[in-house]
Amino acid sequence: MPVPLPVLRCLIRMGIAQRLPSIRRFLGEGVHFLHYLSDAVLAAPNSEIASLDSLLVKQHSSCIDLSIGTPNPAGLQMHLEPIVSGFGDIEKHLFSGYPPASGIPELRQTFSNQLKHDQQLDYDPEKELLITNGVCQSITTALETFINRGDKVVLFDPSFMFYQYAVRCQGARVNWVPTFRIDGELFFEDIALKKAMRGASIIIINHPSNPTGGYFSDHSLQKIVYWAKRFDSLIFSDEVYHRFLYNGRKFHSIAAIPEARTRTLIANSLSKSYSMAGLRVGYLASNENLIRPLKSQQFLRVPFVSSLSQHLAIRCIENADPNLLIDHNELNRNRLQTYQCLQEMGLHEDLPAGAFYFWIDIGNFCSDAMTFCHNLLDENQLLVMPGTDFGPSGKTHVRISYSTDNHTLTRGLDRLSQFLVARDRPADSEISRRDTRHLSETHPIRRMIGSPTGS
Amino acid sequence: MPVPLPVLRCLIRMGIAQRLPSIRRFLGEGVHFLHYLSDAVLAAPNSEIASLDSLLVKQHSSCIDLSIGTPNPAGLQMHLEPIVSGFGDIEKHLFSGYPPASGIPELRQTFSNQLKHDQQLDYDPEKELLITNGVCQSITTALETFINRGDKVVLFDPSFMFYQYAVRCQGARVNWVPTFRIDGELFFEDIALKKAMRGASIIIINHPSNPTGGYFSDHSLQKIVYWAKRFDSLIFSDEVYHRFLYNGRKFHSIAAIPEARTRTLIANSLSKSYSMAGLRVGYLASNENLIRPLKSQQFLRVPFVSSLSQHLAIRCIENADPNLLIDHNELNRNRLQTYQCLQEMGLHEDLPAGAFYFWIDIGNFCSDAMTFCHNLLDENQLLVMPGTDFGPSGKTHVRISYSTDNHTLTRGLDRLSQFLVARDRPADSEISRRDTRHLSETHPIRRMIGSPTGS
Repeated sequence: MPVPLPVLRCLIRMGIAQRLPSIRRFLGEGVHFLHYLSDAVLAAPNSEIASLDSLLVKQHSSCIDLSIGTPNPAGLQMHLEPIVSGFGDIEKHLFSGYPPASGIPELRQTFSNQLKHDQQLDYDPEKELLITNGVCQSITTALETFINRGDKVVLFDPSFMFYQYAVRCQGARVNWVPTFRIDGELFFEDIALKKAMRGASIIIINHPSNPTGGYFSDHSLQKIVYWAKRFDSLIFSDEVYHRFLYNGRKFHSIAAIPEARTRTLIANSLSKSYSMAGLRVGYLASNENLIRPLKSQQFLRVPFVSSLSQHLAIRCIENADPNLLIDHNELNRNRLQTYQCLQEMGLHEDLPAGAFYFWIDIGNFCSDAMTFCHNLLDENQLLVMPGTDFGPSGKTHVRISYSTDNHTLTRGLDRLSQFLVARDRPADSEISRRDTRHLSETHPIRRMIGSPTGS
Repeated sequence: MPVPLPVLRCLIRMGIAQRLPSIRRFLGEGVHFLHYLSDAVLAAPNSEIASLDSLLVKQHSSCIDLSIGTPNPAGLQMHLEPIVSGFGDIEKHLFSGYPPASGIPELRQTFSNQLKHDQQLDYDPEKELLITNGVCQSITTALETFINRGDKVVLFDPSFMFYQYAVRCQGARVNWVPTFRIDGELFFEDIALKKAMRGASIIIINHPSNPTGGYFSDHSLQKIVYWAKRFDSLIFSDEVYHRFLYNGRKFHSIAAIPEARTRTLIANSLSKSYSMAGLRVGYLASNENLIRPLKSQQFLRVPFVSSLSQHLAIRCIENADPNLLIDHNELNRNRLQTYQCLQEMGLHEDLPAGAFYFWIDIGNFCSDAMTFCHNLLDENQLLVMPGTDFGPSGKTHVRISYSTDNHTLTRGLDRLSQFLVARDRPADSEISRRDTRHLSETHPIRRMIGSPTGS
């Protein structure tokens, strides 16, 4: 339970705040530097990050990491040649001075072509696209541009934790909408969405979803657009997993719905589709009247994206087939294998339709996801992501990523199984195994994964 | 004169704000998107940027650009080889996943070594260094971390315009301290500094200075530290021009003063020293208790710097001699030639000691720097930077950069001369020329360049 900001400011003036455990955890020996810190720092989710960090810091070389979602690039030697060949003119990019504030025109054109080719969406590369340092900057810039302190932002529970962090950094509030999945599809209750959307400035959607792997049907997207229009909210659509849908399912962007076009910001990057998170190249696409202030805010805060990265991004998109760069067949095998293993542990009843995560309810084993993750790392050297900061439902969930190579994944799942067996819970009982063994993608148990109450 | 934010909010609610010229200039056809914008956007210096943009947009291929400060790299073919050779292992950097939030350890070590080697400063690479997307992110992150709405930030007049923009974006106020130069050294009045520092959270210094090229003596630096300590303010020291001092002068960082060490943030980058503005790699160095919250804020806003850029930065710093990469002798020749030419135009009486700019009073020709620049661009196709946003003194000053190649510089100065001759002002009179001809670096006219009043 964080201390409210006005109270904290008061405690700082009285010289007492330095004794708060949350402050000591955040500042360590530096508590006497507390009075320098801005309200933005004090309101930031520092405790949450410190808590997560206390887990991540324990990782060592014999650990297996299933916490991070970066796809394993396939056939490197084969597919790198067209990307890097000719990059010997590197000095052109090294000494090219400051790149244009909106991004290099050729890259904006490339992304515009990609949106047209992949999703039949038309965005003017000159006025409707802004190159960013990845989706994180896209989120931060969007919230800075459209959100004030005290405003409301709608998030689906669970959602990628960075959204919640970013909203809180702006001093804004989250209205959660619980979701559940059937056959990998994400559902929400209309009444919950309506209630959350009332008076909200932005709704952030992300499908296929991190962490559930679920996707929204066209019908659900239309409902979101309806309420966004009704309450005049903007829609931030994080589409970084748009290539990661299995069994021939096709991704549909919310921006394809005509009523959504003017109020939607599409965010995407090369971090997942091309497995190039280190490039830090993403974009925002929207109508020019929203892009203009976004561009201006970005210029005034953290302007420019590495021109080297931008030129390499152009080369990647133009010369490398992302379907060859990422082995989607292997990912799908990993998905089915993880599903099978989790079934055998009695852990997961729904097969995710996309992305590369499983969102696992560990409530039967431990009432706190962070404790579960610490124990799992300490006892079996396996790191998975605690769901704690993904939303109200996250306290009893962990996220496993299967984007790693199959060998690592197999060993990781073995360790998870050993850990659960040692706990001697229903997981390894015959009943539980029989209950779940019949489940498949076509015969799923309908299971609510979101918190029934929201916030 | 910008409309105060509460008034603007009121006008927006009344539906009148859309008719304001400043709003129309900023949003164009998109005025009906005004109600989506956050206070941060409304408080940002949008008019100033739109005004500057209306100048820059007029530039075309036959223009000469003396507005931008990116040094002309020398001997590319000779010095690039050690930088890029072996970068064929590019896939290691392309597919390396998310880089560490504080930056790649080897790069932090490299910068730490550089601080030690160049300036005898000790910074722990693990705890006291943070890699940033260039100095702009360093400024933004520092202000977000240490400044609240309504706080005061001290800037010297004139100062690089981005500081003022960044302060205003935070809703903070600038206390200006006028400066003047003698022999290229920057001076200020003690009483003005003391008055400005009272109650200020941060003072931002930048020497050698953009735009004046002036430097602070150790004595002046000590005075700044004295008042910063007295009023418990932090010191942000932008040292990107630290290699650009002429005539054997040696750069001294304010952080070298023992009392300043704990309260100073050093910012630097590869944009000037290595002429690699496109890399977007910079750093912040400070004591660990200030770096910790800075790191946390950066992670929550715009995390990660391109790992490709970071690896290339390591290679540059370790293998390339910045004194060979930038031809400082040529820069010095450019400096003396520009000085001579400006003298002949009756324009500049003080020879800058560092950086690569001349800060020129054009008050005799035009009462408004922006108008002067528009006319110069329209009539003689020469682009120089209007001083308008550099501080109160900037309204009658322009900045010329001599970091370009000598041929372009010579042609640019010719155009400036033609422009002034056509204006038939004292510039080309015999008296003026005689007045200034005797001036040299050792016999300067003592000229106030800052506003006598400040704010």
